[in-house]
Amino acid sequence: MATKPGIPKGTRDFSPVEMAKRNYIFNTIREVFYLYGFQQIETPSMENLSTLMGKYGEEGDKLLFKIQNSGDYFSGLTDEELLSRNAAKLASKFCEKGLRYDLTVPFARYVVMHRDEISFPFKRFQIQPVWRADRPQKGRYREFYQCDADVVGSNSLLNEVELVQMIDAVFSKFGIRVSIKINNRKILTGIAEIIGEADKIVDITVAIDKLDKIGLENVNAELASKGIPQEAIDKLQPIILLSGSNEEKLETLKSVLAASETGLKGVEESEFILKTISTLGIKSEVELDLTLARGLNYYTGAIFEVKALDVQIGSISGGGRYDNLTGVFGMDGMSGVGISFGADRIYDVLNQLDLYPEDASFGTQLLFVNFGEAEAAYVLPVLAKVRAAGIRAEIYPDSAKMKKQMSYANAKAIPFVAIVGENEMNEGKVMLKNMATGEQNLLAPEELIAAIR
Amino acid sequence: MATKPGIPKGTRDFSPVEMAKRNYIFNTIREVFYLYGFQQIETPSMENLSTLMGKYGEEGDKLLFKIQNSGDYFSGLTDEELLSRNAAKLASKFCEKGLRYDLTVPFARYVVMHRDEISFPFKRFQIQPVWRADRPQKGRYREFYQCDADVVGSNSLLNEVELVQMIDAVFSKFGIRVSIKINNRKILTGIAEIIGEADKIVDITVAIDKLDKIGLENVNAELASKGIPQEAIDKLQPIILLSGSNEEKLETLKSVLAASETGLKGVEESEFILKTISTLGIKSEVELDLTLARGLNYYTGAIFEVKALDVQIGSISGGGRYDNLTGVFGMDGMSGVGISFGADRIYDVLNQLDLYPEDASFGTQLLFVNFGEAEAAYVLPVLAKVRAAGIRAEIYPDSAKMKKQMSYANAKAIPFVAIVGENEMNEGKVMLKNMATGEQNLLAPEELIAAIR
Repeated sequence: MATKPGIPKGTRDFSPVEMAKRNYIFNTIREVFYLYGFQQIETPSMENLSTLMGKYGEEGDKLLFKIQNSGDYFSGLTDEELLSRNAAKLASKFCEKGLRYDLTVPFARYVVMHRDEISFPFKRFQIQPVWRADRPQKGRYREFYQCDADVVGSNSLLNEVELVQMIDAVFSKFGIRVSIKINNRKILTGIAEIIGEADKIVDITVAIDKLDKIGLENVNAELASKGIPQEAIDKLQPIILLSGSNEEKLETLKSVLAASETGLKGVEESEFILKTISTLGIKSEVELDLTLARGLNYYTGAIFEVKALDVQIGSISGGGRYDNLTGVFGMDGMSGVGISFGADRIYDVLNQLDLYPEDASFGTQLLFVNFGEAEAAYVLPVLAKVRAAGIRAEIYPDSAKMKKQMSYANAKAIPFVAIVGENEMNEGKVMLKNMATGEQNLLAPEELIAAIR
Repeated sequence: MATKPGIPKGTRDFSPVEMAKRNYIFNTIREVFYLYGFQQIETPSMENLSTLMGKYGEEGDKLLFKIQNSGDYFSGLTDEELLSRNAAKLASKFCEKGLRYDLTVPFARYVVMHRDEISFPFKRFQIQPVWRADRPQKGRYREFYQCDADVVGSNSLLNEVELVQMIDAVFSKFGIRVSIKINNRKILTGIAEIIGEADKIVDITVAIDKLDKIGLENVNAELASKGIPQEAIDKLQPIILLSGSNEEKLETLKSVLAASETGLKGVEESEFILKTISTLGIKSEVELDLTLARGLNYYTGAIFEVKALDVQIGSISGGGRYDNLTGVFGMDGMSGVGISFGADRIYDVLNQLDLYPEDASFGTQLLFVNFGEAEAAYVLPVLAKVRAAGIRAEIYPDSAKMKKQMSYANAKAIPFVAIVGENEMNEGKVMLKNMATGEQNLLAPEELIAAIR
């Protein structure tokens, strides 16, 4: 009968110490979201497959976790269909529901369904797990949290400015030094236009995006392999390698992109965002980075990406402006801009830099040792008072050996232990031990609370 | 291309107002769990079906949401097997994983897998959604949260005492008046023994559990229909209808159960729990209720159930002592006791009694009206200062009509609006409007913060 227990690959248990750290991350991000006027929503873990399919490309469809219909999921299927063993096609017969793949599509679905109750512009945040049937590897899981904030129903660039402020606020709170990279999809479109390869914008941005990883030579080779003529590749060089301050880059771009209306619009937007941010005293460096293109194709304006300065790791936050979030669900003209924080990578960065604050754990502050029934009866009302004062406290439930109770306190990293034996009871006192210093003090119960605070 | 959006039946979207209320519920419960020294864990949404199957009875197996294997889930299946169209049998071929059905089985699996890192007794809590393919109906969902706290690895009755204290603390914080009913499985076993029907204990408890709903006559009819002789049913009558104070009930039980060692043990345990609780000044009434049996068969000692006094609704919390939580995973001798709070029902009770505190929403406190680019540029640094002081604030991102901006403030229930036009800019001030009273004050930016606090 005994099953050897395990968990599905790519999933994780979170133990108390990990949970305390994760809660610290989510609470910090949530606090900043609230501070900027964002409101939380949650959507179901399961969505109809009709909502999810076709939204993440062909590859994405394969990575959806599909939920088998309850009851007789064979009904309506012919023998022939069954024996075709067409896994992809039959999945849509066997399954009507799938697990959420990201927070964006469910959000779009939410906006359309609730359009009449929402007061636009809608500043929403959402912190929930998503699931992807990806091949698990280091740092990549099949179940992980996304923390998204989006503003929909407003074209104002102030939203972009505020999102950059929020990124700065979150990482300042964490104590993680970051570089916030911004770019604009319109600049990239402008570049493609002026080199006469407007229809190759996706190939170009994908290649440019790899500059950091594969170097200029390979980027050029990739561009050539995509059928971009040498002349156009030559024109691209100064732009890919553009350097200097943000202002210098923008000035150069203005002249290079003079012939592209879209390109100039992108420059103007970036200029507004960067200039406005510079008046608001944020701590992080903000850099215009033309190599930033991001994989997703739906961004139409500003693009953001955040790199930790003191740890080698991929981007720890990112986002951008997109048009027509909800068009696929029949509601047009809904522009939005959003950012997403990568909780798992932030977790790794905070661990590597050892930046977790000590008081983030909400662990027990005081353990009462249990010497038996009479002592416990004496302790319980004291314990109730201590808790009423907001101190997290417990009594060891069994009158086990002292050594066992003390190792319990150590394992839970409890900073204070209260010892009540016959002597203490006779005197109406409690012996309070500071576990870090070893110091012991005989205190009246009412003195306990002050001593621990 | 446009899909008419919907969500799977039995699931829910949570809008900002609902989220604020739900967060208030979870935060309140979590705070009490921490106060009593419980530590949070989380387990994956998906478990291996081998972990879940056979743990919830035949009916439960059917109600598990199963996740279709990725890739070619037909591999290894013969044509004959396929054409058998045996949905239940083939589900185990098509699917290796399922969604969590409750928090108890994953917790048992967790304890076994992490036994070497856990310092017992392990006081854990867990607040996560569970999924059941039940027929949806009013108040019953296919995705809903459970909030569980359990202590495993300790037989001490102090754990039972503390769980009752926690129930009292949670509902006191909510302002919900409750009756905490307790019983003991050993008392029920004792009763079955003394009437000579020890093997019918399940039938007896199931029938007794229905007394409130179907009345004494139908309970007796049900007992008879289960093959319990009239003589035994007669013996049961005074016990089912036992009344008086807890002390009186216990005294009666002591004499009625004198011949049953198990029964007397149950009485003794209940007496200890009730007596100890009575010294700790809890607010809720605690009642020994022999009709309380609960559906689940795995309780072996104390049983708890909580009823709201001012709202007609099923139990809003419950739990009990169980033996051998982890035996099914090959780890014996792990006794535990736990409680679970029903977040959805608590939500309904708080709504009906209108008990949500006003400050539970974490909504925006101050909205800056946007009159255009120059005004926004003046406002942004003020806004940054206000936020730095911890005030949740935002600027309307577009310079829309005043009326539109004010209805936005109303829709989000924002209590203060700051108006900055040419006059205010010239004077270096901000006009602060209290949305409830209509009162307006011309303030220096630094006076704003104090005015809102």
